[in-house]
Amino acid sequence: MNTKIILRNRPNQTVTQDNFQCIDADIEPLKSGQVLVLNQWLSLDPYVRGRMSERKSYAPSIALGDVVMGEAIGTVIDSRSDQFKAGDKVIGMLGWQTHAIMNSAAIKSIPQTPFSETRLLGAAGMPGITAWIGMMDICKPQAGETLFITSAAGSVGSVAGQLAKIQGAHVIGLAGSDEKCAFAQDVLNFDHCLSYKNSSWLGNLNKYAPNGIDGVFENVGGTLFDSLIPQMNPFSRIAICGLIAEGLEEHFHSINLRTLLANRMLIQGFIVSDHITRWQEIQKQLINLIAEQKIQIHEKITENLQNAPQAFIDLLEGRCLGKQIIKLS
Amino acid sequence: MNTKIILRNRPNQTVTQDNFQCIDADIEPLKSGQVLVLNQWLSLDPYVRGRMSERKSYAPSIALGDVVMGEAIGTVIDSRSDQFKAGDKVIGMLGWQTHAIMNSAAIKSIPQTPFSETRLLGAAGMPGITAWIGMMDICKPQAGETLFITSAAGSVGSVAGQLAKIQGAHVIGLAGSDEKCAFAQDVLNFDHCLSYKNSSWLGNLNKYAPNGIDGVFENVGGTLFDSLIPQMNPFSRIAICGLIAEGLEEHFHSINLRTLLANRMLIQGFIVSDHITRWQEIQKQLINLIAEQKIQIHEKITENLQNAPQAFIDLLEGRCLGKQIIKLS
Repeated sequence: MNTKIILRNRPNQTVTQDNFQCIDADIEPLKSGQVLVLNQWLSLDPYVRGRMSERKSYAPSIALGDVVMGEAIGTVIDSRSDQFKAGDKVIGMLGWQTHAIMNSAAIKSIPQTPFSETRLLGAAGMPGITAWIGMMDICKPQAGETLFITSAAGSVGSVAGQLAKIQGAHVIGLAGSDEKCAFAQDVLNFDHCLSYKNSSWLGNLNKYAPNGIDGVFENVGGTLFDSLIPQMNPFSRIAICGLIAEGLEEHFHSINLRTLLANRMLIQGFIVSDHITRWQEIQKQLINLIAEQKIQIHEKITENLQNAPQAFIDLLEGRCLGKQIIKLS
Repeated sequence: MNTKIILRNRPNQTVTQDNFQCIDADIEPLKSGQVLVLNQWLSLDPYVRGRMSERKSYAPSIALGDVVMGEAIGTVIDSRSDQFKAGDKVIGMLGWQTHAIMNSAAIKSIPQTPFSETRLLGAAGMPGITAWIGMMDICKPQAGETLFITSAAGSVGSVAGQLAKIQGAHVIGLAGSDEKCAFAQDVLNFDHCLSYKNSSWLGNLNKYAPNGIDGVFENVGGTLFDSLIPQMNPFSRIAICGLIAEGLEEHFHSINLRTLLANRMLIQGFIVSDHITRWQEIQKQLINLIAEQKIQIHEKITENLQNAPQAFIDLLEGRCLGKQIIKLS
């Protein structure tokens, strides 16, 4: 039997438990080229929120009744592919379910790591590579520059800020609670972290970034974004990675192009899946940095597939620190 | 005697003749390292509008009473520098005047060209290099892509569009009159040129760019800009070169960052003077393209320094085609 969580209906503004349904289903027999995976670790990621809506985007929506998408690590327990055999550990878009039938081309063996394989869903995987592309390729921090990271305590922002620190930049984070800010400062070694729930954050930003901001790694969007533009320095860069604060609304930002021009600013939206050819090379560097403890990790592991919807809602509503993972088996 | 045009007062919204004053002044004796240049060809360029205002920008304003800035070509007629001798042809920021006393480090000998030296103020000089940086380095047109150029008949836009054509792109221009559009299509070989004075231009853009827009070379700004964003394709690029329509007002554009993110768009402001190290290399390529008639030129040459203010006003108000030059001697 496969237990799976399907999309029952689409969220209006906020995601609720009611949008999901947990059902059991028979496991179909394998076809040639397929493998059956027993899912073990399920990654919860904010991008899934976008796929739950019908709005046109860079990737198709989840159909109503379909299993909710998600990356996971599992073990092959049956195989009709010569690529994989029972016992192989694999990673792929296995979904919010206990078992996945996958074409062998859609999964990969996990690389060897000197640390828990769960990191391959976080700092050593898609979120870490997202941080790398946005920070190293777009923000390009230089020693002595000031970088600003929103969603600083999340799985992407936490790596982005640490990468900037490794380059010798002054790093300021923005997060949604004092606990997250303490984590960013004390564990991730950010120079400062401001809570946007504190109305004086923008004033504090001026205090902690007296020389202006050279790069922004944007995960949040919403009204916070517009406050940053006037703080940006000549030749500054903004990487738009996510806009989690904007939800379903059409949010229009008020941007003065003359500021952009006078400061020769760059704004670049990016999506990690466009950079698949660089995946292995970047992953290797991240694995080394994590192994050397130059990148610190916080994971929260919740047991049981049935808890995935609430854990995902907690993630979207900013109640989580670091990487959120569901232990399935 | 030096005849010069000074900034008498700053424009409010539009530049008027009253902002300028033409005066005669004695020519001071040369100091060591200086040369006296008899100015011959004066370039009129839209960026001077920005320098007439006091607004903080990437470069200082022209002080009241100072000669109006401008690039020009002239002949050394007296020298106390071992870098230049009488008879040398030089280029530099000689200003809106008949004679200029310059430090030798602030001028350059003009390169050899197989065409009129006036091109060195246009397609083979600063405006052409501006077009190159924005088009080749930021918009990066690929064969078959659609590029959109505002101020298409101007000294920068005309070169930008031709560079895109040389790369095999489909090129659509926007300009302010039917005459300019005919010039862009018939002389510059743009695929289409739309007049923004025709209210159906946006509808026509959909017709002539049925596959969307891959790159925008923006010289104009204002409300036109916002209409373009929804037409942009995934992985599209916008180079912000100028915002001549925005004048002195603080114009805020309404930009949906989700569109930017979903389309992985890039917006980059740039200023040609940041790229001084690449000047010679790019200029050499432009000289070759002009010599091979792969870049077509239109120059309007007006006689007499006293006509510079009106010619500049005509340029700002969109009454000119191609490169505007004043013949001083």
